[in-house]
Formats: sequence, C-alpha cells, structure tokens
Amino acid sequence: AKDEWNGVAEWKIRANPAAVNSKNPIRDVMESLPPVVARNGKLEISLAQGDPCAFGHLLPPDGAIEALLNTAESSMFNGYAHSAGLLESRRLVIAKYHSINSKLAADDVYITVGCSQAIQLCIEALACPGSNILLPRPGFPIYETFSSYYGLQCRHYDLLPDHDWEIDLEQLESLVDCNTVAMIICNPGNPCGAVYSHEHLSQIAGLAERLTVPIIADEIYAHMVFGTRKFVPMATFSWKVPILVAGGISKRWLVPGWRLGWIILHDPRGILKRGRVVEALTRLVQMTIGTCTLVQAVVPDLLLHTSSDFHQKTLLTLKLGAELCFERVKRIRGLSCPSAPEGAMYMMVKIDFLDFVELKNDLEFAAVLRCEELVTVLPGTAFGLKNWIRIVFVAPLSHLKEAWDRIEIFCQRHVRRKP
Amino acid sequence: AKDEWNGVAEWKIRANPAAVNSKNPIRDVMESLPPVVARNGKLEISLAQGDPCAFGHLLPPDGAIEALLNTAESSMFNGYAHSAGLLESRRLVIAKYHSINSKLAADDVYITVGCSQAIQLCIEALACPGSNILLPRPGFPIYETFSSYYGLQCRHYDLLPDHDWEIDLEQLESLVDCNTVAMIICNPGNPCGAVYSHEHLSQIAGLAERLTVPIIADEIYAHMVFGTRKFVPMATFSWKVPILVAGGISKRWLVPGWRLGWIILHDPRGILKRGRVVEALTRLVQMTIGTCTLVQAVVPDLLLHTSSDFHQKTLLTLKLGAELCFERVKRIRGLSCPSAPEGAMYMMVKIDFLDFVELKNDLEFAAVLRCEELVTVLPGTAFGLKNWIRIVFVAPLSHLKEAWDRIEIFCQRHVRRKP
Ligand SMILES: Cc1ncc(COP(=O)(O)O)c(C=O)c1O
Ligand SMILES: Cc1ncc(COP(=O)(O)O)c(C=O)c1O
Repeated sequence: AKDEWNGVAEWKIRANPAAVNSKNPIRDVMESLPPVVARNGKLEISLAQGDPCAFGHLLPPDGAIEALLNTAESSMFNGYAHSAGLLESRRLVIAKYHSINSKLAADDVYITVGCSQAIQLCIEALACPGSNILLPRPGFPIYETFSSYYGLQCRHYDLLPDHDWEIDLEQLESLVDCNTVAMIICNPGNPCGAVYSHEHLSQIAGLAERLTVPIIADEIYAHMVFGTRKFVPMATFSWKVPILVAGGISKRWLVPGWRLGWIILHDPRGILKRGRVVEALTRLVQMTIGTCTLVQAVVPDLLLHTSSDFHQKTLLTLKLGAELCFERVKRIRGLSCPSAPEGAMYMMVKIDFLDFVELKNDLEFAAVLRCEELVTVLPGTAFGLKNWIRIVFVAPLSHLKEAWDRIEIFCQRHVRRKP
Repeated sequence: AKDEWNGVAEWKIRANPAAVNSKNPIRDVMESLPPVVARNGKLEISLAQGDPCAFGHLLPPDGAIEALLNTAESSMFNGYAHSAGLLESRRLVIAKYHSINSKLAADDVYITVGCSQAIQLCIEALACPGSNILLPRPGFPIYETFSSYYGLQCRHYDLLPDHDWEIDLEQLESLVDCNTVAMIICNPGNPCGAVYSHEHLSQIAGLAERLTVPIIADEIYAHMVFGTRKFVPMATFSWKVPILVAGGISKRWLVPGWRLGWIILHDPRGILKRGRVVEALTRLVQMTIGTCTLVQAVVPDLLLHTSSDFHQKTLLTLKLGAELCFERVKRIRGLSCPSAPEGAMYMMVKIDFLDFVELKNDLEFAAVLRCEELVTVLPGTAFGLKNWIRIVFVAPLSHLKEAWDRIEIFCQRHVRRKP
C-alpha cells in the first residue's frame, strides 16, 4: 500500500484559481444543503428553486411532447446543427420576438444552452479587460457569477422595494463611467416578481442612450405577467439603444430541463456590429457548438402552435400562488412584502429582525426554518439583499398553504423582541 | 433618416478581444464556405465534418429513440437536473467505464454538453495563469481553441506518420517544464484514425508519471476500432497518473446533435482532488447548468441495452469505408496515406506538391477540389499539419466511390511536375 501512494507529494497540480473561486450561489446552496429527513409525517417543501416542473402540476403543452416525438422518430435531427442554431428555429424566434422598431433577420438570433448560456455569452462577448457592468440588486445571481468570472467589475444599482421594485435611476447613472460595457435589466423580474411599466422602461432606455451603455435585457419571463401591467419588451426602445435580449423556452413552456434559450440582437444602427460584438458572439458559439438539435427542431412548433389557453392556465396558477403568498405574509408578524408580485414566479419577503432577536440574519432564518419546519427558501443574501428571503410561488396551492402554515408557526415560535 | 442615425459615432462599444480572436477552425471553415451550386447533375459530397448522421445511412439504436419517447411522455425529466448530471446516468457511466484499477463513484462523473464541453471544462479547470499544455499535432483543433482562450501556451508534440501516428515521446518530454498542466491524448485518434497499442499507452502513462503531468484522455471514439488493435482505455494506467477522460454518446451511438458527453475522473491517489481540480470542475458545471435532462435520462438505457449488433454494424461500415479510401489513395499519383486507419472515422492523406506545381498548398487543394469537383474535405492546416488533407470515411460507400472518382479525375487534371 505504501508503494502505491509513493510520490503523491511530487504532483504539483493546481487548479485554475478563477474556476475555483467562481460561484453560482443558487446552485451552490441547493447542491450543498444536507438532505432533510421527513419528520412526523412532514415532507420537505421546497420553495427555493425556480423550476415550474418540480411539483408535477404544470406540464409542457401536449403539442410540445408530440412535436418532440415526431422529431425523434424522423431521424432528421440527430446530427450537428449550425453553431448559432437551426435556421428554421432562428427564423421563428424572429417572427415571434421581433420588435416594432427593428427589422431582424435569422442572423440576429443565436440559439443557446438555456437562457443561462445566453446571459453568459452576452457578458463574455462584452467583457473587455478593465471594464465594469451594472447589475440589479436584488438580482439573479448568475449575472455576477459570469461578470466576475470574465473579469468585469460588478456595480450594483438598487431596485426600490417601496416603488414596485423600480430601478433607482439616479443611482444607476452615478455608477456609469467610460468603462461601463452594459447594464443588465431583468423584466419581469427575478427575484421580486416586478413588472415594469412602459414609462419606466422608456426612462431606462433614454438613460442608457444618453450614457451610451447598451442593455442586456433578461426576458426569460417575457409575457409571464398576471397583474395589472402588460409585458413591454425592452426592444420596443431599440431605436434608442442597442439591446441584447436573452430569452428562451424554459419558463413559459415549462421545460427548463430542455436547455434551450436564445440571444436576439436588436441593433438597428449597427452599433454592436461595429464594435465587433456580433463577431465575438459568432466566435463564442462556434467554440461551444450548441444545444440539443432535437429540442431546437421543436422550437418552431412551440412558438407557432401553443394555444393561448395553455399560457393562461400557467398564468392563473401563478396568480393564485402569488395572491396566496402575499395574503399570508400580511398575517405574519415580523414578515412583510412591500408590493404584490405581478410577474415571473418569485417574491421577496422582508424579515424584521427586531421581531426575531434570536435569529441573526436571513441565512440563519432560512437554515433554521428548513431544519425545524422542512420548508426550504433561499436567503436574500443569495440575491444581494440581506434580511429578505425569496419565495417561489409556482408550487401547487396545497403545497403553498402547508408551507405558509409551517412558516407561520415557525415565526410565532421565534418572534421575540428585545425586552 | 439622418436623425435616426444621429449619435452613432458616440457609441464606443468594443467587444472582448479574447472572444473576437478565439477560433474553432472546423466550425469557422464549415460555416463560412460559400455554398456550392450543383453542376451537370453533380451534387456536393462533403467528407469534411465528423457527423455520422449527415448521410442518413447510420441511425441511432431503435431502443434509444424508444427510450427517448418514453422519457418525454413520462413528464419526469422536463425540469432542471443536478449541475453535474442525473445521478442515475452518472452511475451508469461509471458502471460501464470504470477501469480495472480505480474504484469510482458517481461523484467522479460530470455529464456535459457533448464531449466538446467535457474537453473545455478539463482545460478550463487546469488553466492556471502562466501555464502550458501539450497537444497532438495533427490534432482535433478545439484543444488549441480552448487552451489559447483560457490563456494556456500551446506546445505541440508530433504524431509520427511513419510509425502508425504514434507519439514522438522524446520530443514530448522535451516540451515539458514545471508549468505544464496537462497533456491531451486522443485515442482512437482524430484526424488520423490511429489506435494505440497497450504498449504505447503504457509508455505514455509512464512518461506522464515520471514528469508528473496529468493526462486528459479524449476517448470520444472509445471502442470504435475495426482493425487489428483493440481499444485500450487510458484509465488502465490511472495507478500511475491521474487521468481526466472526456467521452460521450455522440459518435458511438450516432447522436452528436443530442449534445451529451462526460468527464470521468480517474484519480485513485487523490492528486486532482488535492490540487482542487475537482472543486474547480464542480464550480464550472454549476455556472453552466448542464445539458438536456431528457437526453440525460436516456443514457442508462443507451449504456445498458444497446446490442453489440448495433455497434458491429457501425464498425463494419467504418471498416469498409476506411478500406475503400485507403485503396483509392494508393491508385492516385501525388497522394499517399502512410498507414491504414484502424479506428474513429478519419484518415489523413498526404499531398505531394512536387506533383501539383500549380496548387500552392493544402488550403488551395481543398478549395479548388471543392470548386471544381464539389467534394469538400478539410485542409490539414486546420489540424496543424500542412500539405495533408483529412478525409471523413463514415459516408456510404456509394458516396465514397463517387467522391474518389472525382478526386482521382481532379488529381489527374492537376498533376504536373516542374519541368
Ligand atoms: C432571471 C432569470 N434569467 C435566466 C434564467 C436561466 O434560465 P435557463 O434555465 O433557461 O437557463 C433564470 C432561471 O431561473 C432566471 O430566473
Ligand atoms: C476527437 C474529438 N473529440 C471531441 C469531439 C466532440 O464531440 P461532441 O460532438 O460530443 O462534442 C469530436 C467531434 O468531432 C472529436 O473528433
């Protein structure tokens, strides 16, 4: 045995420090949580991950499965696709997601491995050494993961909880300098469930134009709105400012595991092209080869033939879930939610730690809640906002009720002010 | 109109120069070739891309399609998977690809977006600033694409055409210094079709051990051998040297478009672990989220239930294709192939430019051949070897015959020595 281990000390392998130090907080938290053991008949309820398929109550459109079956049986989509994606799928993305102001061609679309890779590639393509990028706080954490990994300095602009999570534009402006390569705008928003008005988006675009900073618009929740506000695509304002839209089928078609997203370049004035961003994206997708051809081949069918009933059903589920959560929060001392979510599948709940003197912060709140009540939520810290938690409300109502019963009991048990 | 374009000059966006300067030569060549127009009833025959599905004569196992249909209909695999892949699929990869010397667990496997991403992640995880990596010449070009992109200096070791494309080990040794992070070994080999003997692999492993340089073994063509030599997994020697195996289902199961590959870490002495390479890989897959869950769910079925008849049929097709190409090369003045391919789906053909004074080099040879005879092959330059061309012999025999008839006519037309 000794012989076998001989010489181990001589191996001086050291991993890439940038890789070791990179971190996707959601995946990191989710995949390193110790498993919880069911107790007294209680099972874990996770309101932590934004996976609408996790509960089995929401299924992709029947037509999507059928289209996939036909595609698989046709034997025509087992081979490599073009690095930027199947032409027909890119065409349909354009047909469906063009904007009123820009004429687009299939070339303006890149099919990606989920919306995550769309975001990754946009950031990577713009990541000039010594630059910085503007990110929302609270925000979807992979913006920072990728930006830091590609060497960008991250500057966070605040979303204002008491103004329907609108952007603090004055502060945003103060963060910009001549090395700012982009601002990422997420609408409808994760983690707040906010939906921005035409007016607010117009202000954002106007500011971006004045500051000459392009916009990366994360619209993975495009059209997933169920409140009073309509969804307004950022590309409505592409005549002001070049816009890289990141989107995909993960959420709206309830298939996040299929891993298909896209980038749409709205660049009517050719600004991204002149800056060689188009070239950079083309190079990057040629390195990474692309996503499952079978799924790519199903995209035209998804975009053309999904009934509006299908989408309505999802939206109703989301609406009822959001309402239930919003109402339940109001009843619980120590918790609050400043504005009812109107889109996506998330809400942020504020914890008043004056009411919970024994619990240090959101990390401890989430950990103890999980341990005592088997309800899993993500701490706001993962999104850049301490002392909040994020709730996923896409679960079935019965799960949500049970989860809130447990959260209520938990809060009653722990609520205690400093004497 | 003038107003509309106002201010374009003020936009100072510049793309990430590393992205702009990155280059995957195969994709770059393939996707920027101007389309050829059929002439005199002649259609294009492409022997350029290693896509066994391109011709329709080789189909994935029926069982694979059935398993995919069942998976899709089950509705159980539409959601996100673990970043490193579905546990069951990782287990089966281990069950099938463990080595005689190392006990592996599911944790030692990462499911990736094709073997390309497996290679990418191995290189990325090891890419310490200021380091270098050893790559085969000729070799699959994405090794260099990724290595350069992640800042590694590329050092090429030669494969010896007159020694069955074995590695020039003396030269390889001379390239190593204390900043060498890995050597990539491709067996069975692209672009030469070489299959290494147990003895040669043992020598490579012995040298790697002595030099304390880990091996990245690209085994996407594992078991795809049809000559006299058996396939010997590099991991046979993992007791000497840590081995990161990159593999996948693309080639052996004839589904490159499904985009599923894997990394298997053979690290019985924990050398990669101590160097934090395992941590780096875990972080990297958490950033990129992974490949299509549906396809992941089919892997156990593929690995357990594919008949040996299925694989035999593919191997027979490859064998006949390779033999035909090898024989035809012998008949053509100016071309030669030093050793018959015994694996994978490629061979390198040498062009004697003393016989073709009007054609400058392999790039021109390939371009004029395509233009005049509508036969597309890749120039050796794409693989680091000037004045050779690479032939893909996975096409149907009728295509190969027709292609060689055209190549023969082409060569007869152009053969001319300096007077
Ligand atoms: C705001 C936001 N953008 C992007 C993504 C990633 O989407 P995909 O699963 O398509 O990679 C998510 C997933 O939760 C998200 O919430
Ligand atoms: C040697 C070698 N490695 C890796 C790959 C990439 O395989 P995949 O299509 O699974 O990404 C190829 C594809 O041609 C190859 O020839």
